[in-house]
Amino acid sequence: MKPVTLSIDAMGGDAAPQVVIDGLDIFLGRNSGFAIQLHGRADELKRLLNGKSWSRQCEIVDQPDVVAMDAKPSSALRRAKGTSMGGAIQAVKDGTTAAGISAGNTGALMAMSMLSLRKMAGVHRPAMTAIWPTLKGRSVVLDVGANLEADADQLVEFAVMGESYARAVFGKEKPTVGLLNIGSEDEKGRDAVKFAAEILRTRDLGIDFKGYVEGNDISTGAVDVVVTDGFTGNVALKTAEGTARLVSTYVRAALTSSLLSKAGAALAASGLKDLRNKLNPSNVNGGVLLGLNGVIVKSHGGTDAEGFATAVKLASDLAQSNYMDEVAAGLKRVSKLGISPEAVE
Amino acid sequence: MKPVTLSIDAMGGDAAPQVVIDGLDIFLGRNSGFAIQLHGRADELKRLLNGKSWSRQCEIVDQPDVVAMDAKPSSALRRAKGTSMGGAIQAVKDGTTAAGISAGNTGALMAMSMLSLRKMAGVHRPAMTAIWPTLKGRSVVLDVGANLEADADQLVEFAVMGESYARAVFGKEKPTVGLLNIGSEDEKGRDAVKFAAEILRTRDLGIDFKGYVEGNDISTGAVDVVVTDGFTGNVALKTAEGTARLVSTYVRAALTSSLLSKAGAALAASGLKDLRNKLNPSNVNGGVLLGLNGVIVKSHGGTDAEGFATAVKLASDLAQSNYMDEVAAGLKRVSKLGISPEAVE
Repeated sequence: MKPVTLSIDAMGGDAAPQVVIDGLDIFLGRNSGFAIQLHGRADELKRLLNGKSWSRQCEIVDQPDVVAMDAKPSSALRRAKGTSMGGAIQAVKDGTTAAGISAGNTGALMAMSMLSLRKMAGVHRPAMTAIWPTLKGRSVVLDVGANLEADADQLVEFAVMGESYARAVFGKEKPTVGLLNIGSEDEKGRDAVKFAAEILRTRDLGIDFKGYVEGNDISTGAVDVVVTDGFTGNVALKTAEGTARLVSTYVRAALTSSLLSKAGAALAASGLKDLRNKLNPSNVNGGVLLGLNGVIVKSHGGTDAEGFATAVKLASDLAQSNYMDEVAAGLKRVSKLGISPEAVE
Repeated sequence: MKPVTLSIDAMGGDAAPQVVIDGLDIFLGRNSGFAIQLHGRADELKRLLNGKSWSRQCEIVDQPDVVAMDAKPSSALRRAKGTSMGGAIQAVKDGTTAAGISAGNTGALMAMSMLSLRKMAGVHRPAMTAIWPTLKGRSVVLDVGANLEADADQLVEFAVMGESYARAVFGKEKPTVGLLNIGSEDEKGRDAVKFAAEILRTRDLGIDFKGYVEGNDISTGAVDVVVTDGFTGNVALKTAEGTARLVSTYVRAALTSSLLSKAGAALAASGLKDLRNKLNPSNVNGGVLLGLNGVIVKSHGGTDAEGFATAVKLASDLAQSNYMDEVAAGLKRVSKLGISPEAVE
């Protein structure tokens, strides 16, 4: 069988390229049937690959430039050519690779991906996903920052794309979908959210729509897919990250506050290791800009090797799934209905 | 000295009136100089007060009706008279009491308070506050649900009201203020947020404005006052609650996963008790609808006695502060500038 090739931005992220190489080490140690196209400074990468068992599965594409983590998307766009990020995306566009992964500048990655891969037919606004740890396992939240606002049509599109994505990533046949709102009553919430709910409730889109969910329902895993606009989704995601960090700090303080509690923590070490694993953002690393003609996965810029491996695994799962066909079919159903917020009012 | 009188909705909340009485027990045990006006079913309350040392500081006002926790605000408004919630608010309106506290239906409390107390001169939209535990202590977040949207003028109003409120509650001379946004760069974010930032940055409102904060900055305590619209604020608040609960569940599971870890948890008991105290929502219970001619504090409906006591303490602090005068002065400064989003564009 021909290997599935993935293109990697080797220079993106806070600790690149070392973390990228270490992450690929982990990914390729666990998964077979893949080839890697590594975009970045060839001499630096050659040195790092030296002695790796998988260096023969790996092609280095020399890219002299790197998109700075603080570069503005507009300026990054103008200088995309010759960058490790631009090269990794272009390979997906050309069909040379099945998916691309970068831990670099998020805004630049979104802008370059949109310009290069273009939106799928029927998509008005691509949406950024996050995978969220829950009491039941994992959920998808979208949009977490690709757009500042979303009208009802766009929220419905996000629901269609998110549902297909959840099926591809979680392997669940019929993922459940909820709309993020304040209060669960029908009459509450912003107009766009209410119109979107009306569409999802009444039109036959083949989606298992569970109605409104509130912020606290995300972590319980009330639904598999939580749909919201990019502003609200981004604030929710970062608020959750901040809260988890706050609570972890408290836990650490509690378990080192005295000799006795330190001894207790030592006894409870294996349980606490489980806890660290559960709270480890590496385990849920990987955002995808849904709605483009190609798979690009964004890894957290500050990720460790394990997290980068998670993002690569996500990309490989998507590349081998038929989620793009599913999204296309779902969007066709939406466009056939000819829905618009006005039609529902 | 004449005691400060507080009016209490004795029947509001999931475990009323018992939790309310127990909460007053705690509050009055710790604070002197207060009298209580207890609104609710007189015979039931009389029984509960029997033998309390503070029953002589307490006047019972018989109110035969209770606003149901799931009542719609509109229907609650029509039947406000004769309810324990309506009575507690009316007493503030009449000037009989210095502040009112209720753990009842939030929507009904907001609607009744607005109708009865009316907005302060210069206030376009009252805003609901939440007190947020942070790495540095506590911060105020507003609006957390009184409004669905907020334009730039309203966000500036929230900043003015929130700053005065933080000074009254935290006793900090110059609380810092931030605007919730996605990304900290100047060019990012929704127009209303950008316009509000421009106003707060360039006009002399006497506010120590620190610019944009992101979701993760709330928990670190980056600023004392986080300003946002009610939809975003409500989602952030509930998302944080859900995340804290998720992490706490993980911690509990980690510390009971084996005999060894249970033994460890027993040794670390005192440290873990600190942790529980820090995570205990009772310690930050109490939301205030800012911008009305009077102080009404909303306690969480599912609070325990300690939490209700916290909400009463918050109300008593506000009643004894000059925050309403401060808010009025701040709003006068805003109106003198004659600002509007258009003026900044």
